[in-house]
Amino acid sequence: MALEKADASGIRWLDPREAPFRITGLKWISSDKVYRRLPVKPDWEIRKAVDSLANSTAGAQIHFQTDSEKILVRVWLPRRSGMYHMPATGQSGFDLYVGPPGELQYRSTTRFDAGASKYEVTLLDESKQNRNVVLNFPLYNGVQKVQVGLVAGCSLTAPPAFDSEGPIVVYGTSITQGGCAARPGMAYSNILSRRLNLEFVNLGFSGNGKGEPELAKLINQIDNKKMVVLDYEANVSEDIRNTLENFIDILRFQNPRMPILVMSKILYSRETSGSNDARARQDRAEFQRRLVETKRSAGDQNIFFLDGSTLLGEHAYECTVDGVHPTDLGFLKMANTMEPVIKKILANASE
Amino acid sequence: MALEKADASGIRWLDPREAPFRITGLKWISSDKVYRRLPVKPDWEIRKAVDSLANSTAGAQIHFQTDSEKILVRVWLPRRSGMYHMPATGQSGFDLYVGPPGELQYRSTTRFDAGASKYEVTLLDESKQNRNVVLNFPLYNGVQKVQVGLVAGCSLTAPPAFDSEGPIVVYGTSITQGGCAARPGMAYSNILSRRLNLEFVNLGFSGNGKGEPELAKLINQIDNKKMVVLDYEANVSEDIRNTLENFIDILRFQNPRMPILVMSKILYSRETSGSNDARARQDRAEFQRRLVETKRSAGDQNIFFLDGSTLLGEHAYECTVDGVHPTDLGFLKMANTMEPVIKKILANASE
Repeated sequence: MALEKADASGIRWLDPREAPFRITGLKWISSDKVYRRLPVKPDWEIRKAVDSLANSTAGAQIHFQTDSEKILVRVWLPRRSGMYHMPATGQSGFDLYVGPPGELQYRSTTRFDAGASKYEVTLLDESKQNRNVVLNFPLYNGVQKVQVGLVAGCSLTAPPAFDSEGPIVVYGTSITQGGCAARPGMAYSNILSRRLNLEFVNLGFSGNGKGEPELAKLINQIDNKKMVVLDYEANVSEDIRNTLENFIDILRFQNPRMPILVMSKILYSRETSGSNDARARQDRAEFQRRLVETKRSAGDQNIFFLDGSTLLGEHAYECTVDGVHPTDLGFLKMANTMEPVIKKILANASE
Repeated sequence: MALEKADASGIRWLDPREAPFRITGLKWISSDKVYRRLPVKPDWEIRKAVDSLANSTAGAQIHFQTDSEKILVRVWLPRRSGMYHMPATGQSGFDLYVGPPGELQYRSTTRFDAGASKYEVTLLDESKQNRNVVLNFPLYNGVQKVQVGLVAGCSLTAPPAFDSEGPIVVYGTSITQGGCAARPGMAYSNILSRRLNLEFVNLGFSGNGKGEPELAKLINQIDNKKMVVLDYEANVSEDIRNTLENFIDILRFQNPRMPILVMSKILYSRETSGSNDARARQDRAEFQRRLVETKRSAGDQNIFFLDGSTLLGEHAYECTVDGVHPTDLGFLKMANTMEPVIKKILANASE
């Protein structure tokens, strides 16, 4: 571990890309060294928008254990915050969870000027005792550089392992990416990661979950996947009919028995109006359900369908900031509904 | 109703301070004409910070019925948005609910540049049919002027009445004011208003719910109150012991039988750490509970206590953006717990 010297206030600043820290959710970081969700030079050409959005660090986490009384972060962002419907804390902030695997509890969030492109924040200042720590990365901004600050002389050790190796990959839209959670830990992939104690790779690309074959091929490059969740209908609408089967077939060609969960889109508030939106959504969900059924009838017992309209449950129409993007309320409800479905699939898959 | 002429796109712009619109939550608007939660010139001197925060329009609502296919708003703000932990939609936006009283459903939110100090947004564009509409005002900004835009020639009629006359007044802190809801309708006073179909007057003053006698006297100026909720512990901490009884006595002197609900503060995430915070909070809650018990033993059967630590329920520590301020998740849970308590008090009060 290459340490910088302690600063004047006794804090040593560390690079979380180096052991014993573990960074999860960024599968190309060991080769590319940068905080990015796709390879810097993908083997298949990807659209510019996807390439740019891959620099947003949604779903990435830093794991470690320390007995330091203080935990700080210094963060350098490529651009300022400024979304109108998502606070800077969710767009560009980190939040901190502490506790044993499977029982992590939220503790604090980085507070910084909404216009800042660099910040330093003390996330924990408590008694000296060993803690298991997870920091969640910004959802809608990149991270050029991040340092973790610990009290000089404290312990720093490797984090406990996930319950099993191999990530769950979620591919999708702005909603998948975590828009508009108030802080990073409330994106559904992060909620599920701490509840299931599994690595999640978040491949949600705001407005750009278009189901291109190139993305399926890049997902195929991720080793040892436990499951892939396809949650991109909201960005393609009727084009789900033209893209989904091919996307599945590319994944399946390389991973004959890996569970694939196809998830249709959540309810938008506009559907209360008796517009045609509700009927069109139901038709698309039915298309996805039938496609999965067809695959299962043809012998693929490891593909599943989840009707996204069930995800927000009671008070569904209260769960978004703008009729489309879930708030923390919406994301917790999504995770509540997805958790038992994923658990059951994983339990059967491992039998 | 003084109408401006329809503009080039056939929209007529209306002043919601004029009938048949009804503005609720701002008890001095009929005399002062401005969107403000306290009198422009209060009979008792109030601190500058409170005076300034009274211009934030938390809890104010516009009610009306129309068959207009479109509903728009034009809003002039005294200052731009820019909180780091609350999106502009919650700080400075309006959101729209549609439906019968008691069954209002969220439909849409104003989308505008986060740096804007003036915006015009179409909130509804659907079929022509009569709708009952409620618009919620910004939570953490003022409104210098607002116009409602309807299709020229449409109907515009008075809204249905609340279930009964007279507001519930909530006095408190940033949390009471609605920090950090993603949109105005998710402040707990607004959630409760639509569920109970009652007017709420939100007197939450961010960082400044200090329990001063002047505020109790101003609350006494509000006619026909159904209940007062005191939710200000988080801004005074130990000073709750020096201020609460006097505050209650001032209210009670004028309203011998009006229900008063004393609510201690919600859980902060820091309390998981085993710090002294949890014990100190419990002691203060116990002080408030005992004060209420003492009053009841002395013959006041219309004062009640609600332990705020129960409000966030399961996953309590997930319910805030920063360990302190609830997200929409936290506010829905607060409302869920408060609703039956308030209903029961009102039911007994009216027997």
